Order: sequence, then C-alpha cells, then structure tokens
Amino acid sequence: MHEFERIEKFFTPLATHAGALGLKDDAALLSPSAGCEFVITTDAITEGVHFVGNESPASIAKKLLRTNLSDLAAKGAKPIGYQLSVMLPSKISDDWLHGFTSGLKEDQERFGVSLLGGDSTLSKGFIALCITAIGEAAKGTALLRSGALPDEMIVVSGSLAESTAGLKLLSSDSDAISAVEKAYLTERYRIPNPRVSLGPLLKGIASSAMDISDGLMQDLTHLCRASLLGAKINFDHVPLSPATKKLYMSGFLTMEDIVAGGDDYELLFTIPASRADQLPALSKQSGVPLTVIGKTHAEKAVYLDHKGKVIHLTHQGYQHF
Amino acid sequence: MHEFERIEKFFTPLATHAGALGLKDDAALLSPSAGCEFVITTDAITEGVHFVGNESPASIAKKLLRTNLSDLAAKGAKPIGYQLSVMLPSKISDDWLHGFTSGLKEDQERFGVSLLGGDSTLSKGFIALCITAIGEAAKGTALLRSGALPDEMIVVSGSLAESTAGLKLLSSDSDAISAVEKAYLTERYRIPNPRVSLGPLLKGIASSAMDISDGLMQDLTHLCRASLLGAKINFDHVPLSPATKKLYMSGFLTMEDIVAGGDDYELLFTIPASRADQLPALSKQSGVPLTVIGKTHAEKAVYLDHKGKVIHLTHQGYQHF
Repeated sequence: MHEFERIEKFFTPLATHAGALGLKDDAALLSPSAGCEFVITTDAITEGVHFVGNESPASIAKKLLRTNLSDLAAKGAKPIGYQLSVMLPSKISDDWLHGFTSGLKEDQERFGVSLLGGDSTLSKGFIALCITAIGEAAKGTALLRSGALPDEMIVVSGSLAESTAGLKLLSSDSDAISAVEKAYLTERYRIPNPRVSLGPLLKGIASSAMDISDGLMQDLTHLCRASLLGAKINFDHVPLSPATKKLYMSGFLTMEDIVAGGDDYELLFTIPASRADQLPALSKQSGVPLTVIGKTHAEKAVYLDHKGKVIHLTHQGYQHF
Repeated sequence: MHEFERIEKFFTPLATHAGALGLKDDAALLSPSAGCEFVITTDAITEGVHFVGNESPASIAKKLLRTNLSDLAAKGAKPIGYQLSVMLPSKISDDWLHGFTSGLKEDQERFGVSLLGGDSTLSKGFIALCITAIGEAAKGTALLRSGALPDEMIVVSGSLAESTAGLKLLSSDSDAISAVEKAYLTERYRIPNPRVSLGPLLKGIASSAMDISDGLMQDLTHLCRASLLGAKINFDHVPLSPATKKLYMSGFLTMEDIVAGGDDYELLFTIPASRADQLPALSKQSGVPLTVIGKTHAEKAVYLDHKGKVIHLTHQGYQHF
C-alpha cells in the first residue's frame, strides 16, 4: 500500500477536528478559544529506549499520546489535538498500523483529542515516534514550574515507582508479589495514566506544577531550579501501592529505584500551607489520590529524608544522554 | 555531559520567544496575533532516507527546519517558531550538537523564528529528527490545496529538479556540467530554499497552493484531488536551470526524474487567468522567478504533455512506504 493510501486508510479517520482539514493539506489551522492561549508540548519515543519492541502497537500508541497528555495536564491545560510523526521501518505491516491507529482512536475518544496532522516517513532501522500535543488554558492561568515559594507543601498524585517496578519485572522476577500484581505493574510501565482530570483543577490552588517523567528527585530538582528554591522530601511519605511496597520491603526495589526511576507520569505540585485543607476535596473531585511528601525551603538544595537520615542523591533520575 | 546540561548549553540559547519559557518548563505558551489563526505543520527526517549521514550537522539542521518553513510558506503563513525533537545515538558528540544548533541559529535569524520547546532522547540506531513548525495567517486567509477551479493557470516558483539532480550526482557522475555547477546542485539537495518571501504575497491572488516536496506530478495530483479537478502540465514549460537542462539534454536526468523527483521545495499554485497579469509584479516583489506550466480542467485526471504527446505517469513521485 502506498504512503498516501495508508494515510487515508489509517490516519484520516483520526483527524476529527475541522482544523485538520481531513489531512488533505500541508498544515492544520487552529485558533484558541476566546480568552485562551495554546499550551504546546512535544514528546518522542523510540524503540529499544521507551518501549521494548514486543509491546502491542496499540499500547505503544497510547504510551506516546499519554506522555504528551501528561505534560498538558501538568500545565492545567485542556487537551485539543496533536501532530504525529511516525518514522517506520519498511517491514512495518498494515496490521501493525491498524493496531497502532486503533490504540490512538481509543485514546482520542477517552481524552477528547483529535489528530491534527503530521508526517509519515521511512526509517532505516527501528521505530521512532513523535507527538506535539496542543492544549489550551485561559490566558495567564497555565501552571508553571516556576511559581513555588519557600515553605510550601509538595504534593504528588497517585502512587510512584509502579512503572519502574513494571520495567524491572520484565527482566527479572520476584516472589514477593502475585502474578496479578506483576501484570498490573508491567501494564503501568507500558501505558501511563495521564492525570488529565486533576491538572485543570489545580489552577488557583497549586503555585507550581509539572509531571514526573524522569524520576521524582530529578523532576523535583527541575521544579526547584525554575522556582529558585530547594526542597526536602520525606521518603516514608512517598506513596507506594501495596504491590510496590512489597517489592521494596523484599529488596527487589531499592529506595533509589523509587525516587529516581522514570515514567511515573504522576503530577508533582506545590501549594501554600494555607490551602492544604483543599486537598481532600481536590482529590475527591478529580478521583486521584494526593499525598503531601515534603516541603520547599529557601536554600537551593534538594534533600531526601529517610528515617531522619538526610540524603542528597547523586543519580537523580534516568537520563537519556 | 548530561541531557539537561546539553539542553541548557546548546538549545536554550535558541529559545528566544518569551512563550518558550526558556525551555525551563514542560510546555510552551503561545497565542496568535489579533485576528490571526495558527498554521501548524510537521516534517521529520531520518538518517539514510532524507540525508546521507555525512552532511555537516548544520546543513542537516537547516534541511529539517526549512522543509517545515516551506509548508508554512505554501499556506501563506508567517513563521513564528517550532517544537524540535532530536532522537540521537549515544555516539553523537558535543561537536555535532554544536554544529547542529549553529545551523538552527543561523536559520532562526534568517527566517525570524524561535525554538519553542521539544524533546531530546536517545536513539538505539541512527539519527531521527522532527519539527512541528507554527506560523500564523489572518483568519480564513491561509492558502489551501482545495481552492483551485477549472481553467486556472498552474504556476511554479524557481527551478525544479535541482535537488533530484544533486542527489543523483552524489552517487554517479556526469561530464555535462562543471564542478561549480555540481557543487551548486548537491547543495540544493542538502539545503532547500523555502519560498517564505513568496507565500504570504500569494494571498488574494492564488486560488490554491502547496509546496512541492514529493515531486511535481504527485503533488499536483494531491492538489487536484483536494480541489476535485484535474490538470495538464506542459513538460517543455517546466522551469529548469541551465545546469539541470544540460543534465537532461545529456540523458543524465530523465523526464521522469524531473517531474517525479522529490525535495524541490518550490511552491505550486493556481491562479485565475484574469490575474495572470499580476505574476510579473509578484515575481519582482518576492524576488522569486515564476513560470506558468499548465492549466487545470474539470476532468479528474492529471496529464503531462511532452511535445504534443500526452503521458499519464504511473510512478508519480517518491514515496516513502
């Protein structure tokens, strides 16, 4: 099948937004709603780095789209659509493309977004995929990394280290947890769960926000740098699901795995202590558990407190270079 | 050097637009100017497909950015900025990145655009690069592929097939042209020249427009499909530079090379015959040669007329799949 037939068959049905021009043009046309501005983010994933290669094409598609939606959620933006680049080896079959675009379709319906445009091209080696996602927020209301002040509370959504545990379970085994728990954790690695219901609710409450993709300590360091301050995290407050907790207690997961492992796609944000009483309602409204794990301070250094022993980690997260 | 140090050293200086937030956040914030809408396009290039691999990193960077700017020009949009994804093997050196970002810097100044954000990630094999470029046009004025009517004139900018000639000269030689001419043509393959001065001037004159990236006949077919009509091109009117003409006369380039070879990055547009007298002024104002090469017609088929012999090409352009 020719490139253009493939685009028409597999991708055009995903271009539900009028501005996508049915993928029949060189570009998409897009305006923010009245009073809004666009929030734009880009995430790429490559075979052998962000996915093992034997995942279903639908789950690869979802991981790609969701890592981008997670960034939009962290800015408090409502997702609108995305530009997609697929760089594929010639061996890629129509079946693979069918699975890949079926995954995108499911997530488009789930998250209310449309394919807007993109590019499909040959790759001489492995699969490389890139999305630029576009959302919108009322002008001046997007949550930034740079708004935190000293003595604010540091909050995370959900449970951390599930993706790290899932990835580790793909290459080694543990008898600390059940097969069902293992399946859950590896699925958490394969398909992140962007906190789109939480992000927009943080506006007016959180002073700064970002998503955790490179590991808690590394991303916290980024937030602190952007806000020109520091922070101390209490390890014993870092939220772990029962399965992850068992893996940690059994030694399968280390403390460093938990605070430095990537791909959490949970939200990390700061709130003034005076707004702490809003957290339970926020959690209830968004359906997302929220946990206070530490506090910001004026000193520009990031610490991890574990049972009163304060650690300054050197390897603060997964780095691609 | 760590990923984040590399970003800060090489990429942050390119983020000159305030909405890029100094690359310190997860996303960029962007609003169109009053009365305008965004025009958004994506082009990816991969090692071994769109560039040989031994080009200077600066010329790879320019090719990547310019293929995107060409799409914006074809829509009549003013370029603003771009999201960049670099997927790089671990062997990529800081010297390479320095050259790559120096090329981007030169072109940012030349074309008045800013890096807005993006992603840098590891690739297990070769270099893959993707840009989503954002421009703006007054609402409802962007040039589309779909506006052509029957009996309009088909116009192209510049000279065609120079990139195809340049690529062919990289793998085989010809004594029909001089070393200087060869160097010029291979450079045309390496670095396209997007017609940004011409595109915005076409608004109100052209009825449809696109850029030629997949070969004249294939892209003309796309334009005709979008406009629900057909066209006939006169091969003898297709503009060729003296060097390319010599390569054609000597047999080094075939007619199919000329009408089906990719990477021209010239503009293809239609105008009503009543506006033909505006072409000389348009050419003068933009500094870009313009040539009428054929006419649209109601019948939905695309023909190539060569000395009175009408051909319907089967292989209409370079296809990546």
